[in-house]
Amino acid sequence: GAAPAIVQAQANIRWRLTSAFPKALDTIYGAAEVFSRHVKELSGGKFEISVHAAGEIVPTPGLVDAVQNGTVEMGHTAPYYYFGKDETFALGCAIPFGLNSRQMTAWQYEGNGLKLMREFYKNYNIISFPMGNTGAQMGGWFRKEIKGVNDLKGLKFRVGGFAGKVIERLGGVPQNIPGGEIYTALEKGTIDAAEWVGPYDDLKLGFYKVAKNYHYPGWWEGGPQLDLFINTKAYDTLTPEYKAIIENAAAYAHTDMQAKYDARNPNALKQLVGSGAKLVAFPKDVMEASFKESMALYSEISAKNPNWKKVYDDYAKFRADSNVWFRFTEARFDSFMQAQKL
Amino acid sequence: GAAPAIVQAQANIRWRLTSAFPKALDTIYGAAEVFSRHVKELSGGKFEISVHAAGEIVPTPGLVDAVQNGTVEMGHTAPYYYFGKDETFALGCAIPFGLNSRQMTAWQYEGNGLKLMREFYKNYNIISFPMGNTGAQMGGWFRKEIKGVNDLKGLKFRVGGFAGKVIERLGGVPQNIPGGEIYTALEKGTIDAAEWVGPYDDLKLGFYKVAKNYHYPGWWEGGPQLDLFINTKAYDTLTPEYKAIIENAAAYAHTDMQAKYDARNPNALKQLVGSGAKLVAFPKDVMEASFKESMALYSEISAKNPNWKKVYDDYAKFRADSNVWFRFTEARFDSFMQAQKL
Repeated sequence: GAAPAIVQAQANIRWRLTSAFPKALDTIYGAAEVFSRHVKELSGGKFEISVHAAGEIVPTPGLVDAVQNGTVEMGHTAPYYYFGKDETFALGCAIPFGLNSRQMTAWQYEGNGLKLMREFYKNYNIISFPMGNTGAQMGGWFRKEIKGVNDLKGLKFRVGGFAGKVIERLGGVPQNIPGGEIYTALEKGTIDAAEWVGPYDDLKLGFYKVAKNYHYPGWWEGGPQLDLFINTKAYDTLTPEYKAIIENAAAYAHTDMQAKYDARNPNALKQLVGSGAKLVAFPKDVMEASFKESMALYSEISAKNPNWKKVYDDYAKFRADSNVWFRFTEARFDSFMQAQKL
Repeated sequence: GAAPAIVQAQANIRWRLTSAFPKALDTIYGAAEVFSRHVKELSGGKFEISVHAAGEIVPTPGLVDAVQNGTVEMGHTAPYYYFGKDETFALGCAIPFGLNSRQMTAWQYEGNGLKLMREFYKNYNIISFPMGNTGAQMGGWFRKEIKGVNDLKGLKFRVGGFAGKVIERLGGVPQNIPGGEIYTALEKGTIDAAEWVGPYDDLKLGFYKVAKNYHYPGWWEGGPQLDLFINTKAYDTLTPEYKAIIENAAAYAHTDMQAKYDARNPNALKQLVGSGAKLVAFPKDVMEASFKESMALYSEISAKNPNWKKVYDDYAKFRADSNVWFRFTEARFDSFMQAQKL
């Protein structure tokens, strides 16, 4: 009869999700919890996903391997962490002078972004779903103010992933230091500067106490996207309903994370400034030199990595078209509002 | 036993959704179709929602009454259409010099926006879910270029809803004309100007042929949100799973609509400019006078409408805080990118 068929279609499932983040990053780590809760609600409690912080099952660098091998069914991460395997991973997350948050979502949902990235991730037995964005990040905390491009020479700068390649080209020395060790390294002067995320996360780590200059914008992360990675074999065992549940719960968490950052950063910024943080725009020559080196880097990668070239060509066209449009009504509306006493 | 309980929990349901829009507005009308398709997939085909264009069941102005009375279970609309019932409806959608798209979503999801608006909509037996945003709209099509605030005096301007109140204060004569009649009215000079949405929708209606000056920004619609309205009694009959299905499918459609506009506007803008549309920023004095009159209007409404005051006080605080934050890294990143040759 019909009843057993329904029971089969709604089988109880328990999966594991490894996050690339510590619990302290409650907005980013929290997105996986939001996702898991929504999956549970949508399935009437039958599809349960346990969320594990970085290191509980596998450390962050091992996340792609763990999903690929089926050690876990799912991971939630910033794909650019894995650019060492292939630079193309960065295009699913953020590259210097890339898309902003809305543009990235538009490229993924409605442009060719999701299609192209899924083609690429298939090589790792992975299917991806956009699941969160931080918005444009800050440029980080600098013991000495950066007054020109020459100040980057020799600068020991803790910076995430792919951006280090551009910092190197500008004479800087990118440092790879886990979040928990940055404060002490900055305090002691072992490093000269460190970027993390933006006001909401940075406030908790207290960098303003040891490096007052808070530069912006984080030109290497204009709209970094987090992805839900799922092992394709595990995914293929799901019913159409459960596949839909994953897609919609991930979409909810995607929008919810950006909303959390947008709602929480303003107050955190006030507190940071009230505590002595000095907001300083990167000088024009730093922006221009960084842009030039980034574009040169992308040409070099395109010449030797066909995976990258295929995705980047589409990404770059979307970026060019999108910025022409955003320059008019969006930018004019925003800049007017930002100039008012509200 | 267990099986009948599952069958009950997953009962077959057929609901009707009336859209406030014609099918020709495929991105806005389409959001209700995206929502309906996702609800169907998430429920394994058991929860079916038929989508009806404006006028099929009820015309747009009757949508709130139809949902309130249970004539239909659901409606999808721009809440500011109903400001005649109470100005507070506009705060759930867009007011002149209000929140942009990301800010509106942040206020709804993570600020007090959704909570406060739901309290208000309860007076109409309605529960709301954010379901789409167009992003900042264009200022519309003008037969003569607007060179200063005096050019607004006597201007017969087809403009949607609540914004007309500000246009009136500036000496303009807001016109309420359905989409299908705008072109002829503009061509004949019965009206001097008309705003619709943005490049993607405007291109289809061909206004550039009869009024070349395409002004921006649409300061009265910096990030208008569409809402899914559901009759609360109908909603209360749903199982927790079906409630979750509505929430998540609406969230998907919410993000998907903004992505569609962001991905499609750039090419439409190119085509419009290629066809002779002249992009013209509103002069500074128009922006400033409009801002001043808008703020004066909000003070007046606050003095006499406690529903408005309660929501607007929260909205205005969120707007002030948010613009301080967006002014730094987001604006600096975007303006740099928009100035590059990409």
